[in-house]
Amino acid sequence: MATSAVTNGDSKPAPKFDPTFTQNVINATGPKASPRIRQVIGSAIQHLHDWARENELTVDEWMAGVELINEAGRMSDDRRNEGQLVCDVLGLESLVDEITYKLATDASDAPTASAILGPFWRKDAPERAMGDTIVSGIENGDNTWMHGQVTDYLTGKPIEGAVLDIWHTAPNGLYEQQDPDQPDMNLRGRFTTGKDGKYELYCLRPTSYPIPFDGPAGKILQLLDRHPYRPAHIHFIVTAPGYKPIVTQIFDRRDKYITDDAVFAVKESLIVDFEPLKGNPKADFELSYDFRLATYDEAKNNSLAGATEVTTAEG
Amino acid sequence: MATSAVTNGDSKPAPKFDPTFTQNVINATGPKASPRIRQVIGSAIQHLHDWARENELTVDEWMAGVELINEAGRMSDDRRNEGQLVCDVLGLESLVDEITYKLATDASDAPTASAILGPFWRKDAPERAMGDTIVSGIENGDNTWMHGQVTDYLTGKPIEGAVLDIWHTAPNGLYEQQDPDQPDMNLRGRFTTGKDGKYELYCLRPTSYPIPFDGPAGKILQLLDRHPYRPAHIHFIVTAPGYKPIVTQIFDRRDKYITDDAVFAVKESLIVDFEPLKGNPKADFELSYDFRLATYDEAKNNSLAGATEVTTAEG
Repeated sequence: MATSAVTNGDSKPAPKFDPTFTQNVINATGPKASPRIRQVIGSAIQHLHDWARENELTVDEWMAGVELINEAGRMSDDRRNEGQLVCDVLGLESLVDEITYKLATDASDAPTASAILGPFWRKDAPERAMGDTIVSGIENGDNTWMHGQVTDYLTGKPIEGAVLDIWHTAPNGLYEQQDPDQPDMNLRGRFTTGKDGKYELYCLRPTSYPIPFDGPAGKILQLLDRHPYRPAHIHFIVTAPGYKPIVTQIFDRRDKYITDDAVFAVKESLIVDFEPLKGNPKADFELSYDFRLATYDEAKNNSLAGATEVTTAEG
Repeated sequence: MATSAVTNGDSKPAPKFDPTFTQNVINATGPKASPRIRQVIGSAIQHLHDWARENELTVDEWMAGVELINEAGRMSDDRRNEGQLVCDVLGLESLVDEITYKLATDASDAPTASAILGPFWRKDAPERAMGDTIVSGIENGDNTWMHGQVTDYLTGKPIEGAVLDIWHTAPNGLYEQQDPDQPDMNLRGRFTTGKDGKYELYCLRPTSYPIPFDGPAGKILQLLDRHPYRPAHIHFIVTAPGYKPIVTQIFDRRDKYITDDAVFAVKESLIVDFEPLKGNPKADFELSYDFRLATYDEAKNNSLAGATEVTTAEG
């Protein structure tokens, strides 16, 4: 099976490494593998091997990668998904989000754009009354009155019974599950629209913060001489009966990291302006934002209509 | 940043996904990253993104992959390296071994070929006297008298003080650290050559066995409709003062999996014949095998001379 590095008769150089190896590995796949698995894992083997050959990867370098992946798994539990975070700093979650979203809606009058879920969503956030605040026990935050409407992106009609699931960090840059000083489920909430599709709530104008960099994702950032900061953002999952869920984030235009997100999630249509607000004792800023959803029927010609089910380490 | 799927004026189709995204991620690498890190991780980002785009990977599929990697890390400890095993079933360890070995020695009169370390080596195997057995408490094994010589691959001279570190499974297919019924360090040993460079020891004629398939590596094999068996083999690390260590395995030609190794490690030059042996009450088979080592001087023109340091989860 060995190949030689010398040239052969017709002056074409012999391959440096066994030219049949990768195809042999791919060909080991049995007849009962599903077509999709055969495609996706076969392609992964090809890219993995091409990567190793193109960079002449050594055993030591590969082993360092294995240890990094093992360590990511060991750090992951129901409060932290380090494998996801490693993908995020390599841009993979944002890319997969783009692929899934593009395939789902190629129309120009598209529903609200998606953005990555990120590793900090929790299921069963508290259901709150319309107009309530999600802020508890935080004195130094920029309180914000956020409001808008949830509509059908094609008909423009308001959607009744839409649920906005919202979460963001405290001014110290920590989500509540990372921060023992915050009450459980702080800065999270679920709000359900009435007949007019409108919502309003109080939250904070968010702050930029570093993603956790004490694990393999941080190690990668350090090796690449990159910073760990994300521009200030608020997360949403918007669901409604009969409509495709939207997982997204909105970003503060004034944030210094708006063009330099450590996880590459910013999209132009998701950048928003927090406006100064006068005369409301409960808030210093106002944010108006509407969400546009597509029905499953509107997306029914797309084979990926079911691909936006929310799946996380907690789910 | 969004791109449209419609065609533009000159009838060249617009790219399906943002054509600048991957380069933006690669360009985020800072000026202080080492050239090798910039190359290897930059190339990894390119391949990872190309793989996602070519297969139109969905969020759910990606998340299934993240969970698989996290689970591999959670299963890994000082007795099991599941991240390594996942690489092994995808052929990556064997490929990286080939790359490292080829770069180290392109000569036709090469030293003994290398093979993957695998996840079951343990450091500090017992030092045993020449001629001793590594078998303890096993009644149903095919006892084998193994012998040979360790020589300099260029001069042919015997090497004094060479250490053969040997390990293999019991007839039940388990290494001792996987098997509570075996004594600690059973079927392992280190033997040091004298002036003649010769060695002899008693071991078992090994049996084919399945790699552990109760974790992510097994899940991948199942998805690919593949078996988990390795052809019967004996592991060695051979070291000697002034010589490059060799990590290798030898394989039993008669094994039914000899052309179908679950981790793709078999090389022609490492296939051996166990011969029936008469008149020795301690063994029913004989195996003769010589090891040829290269000095660091002989390999000094190669930048990877230090790349075969043994690194494992335990080391």
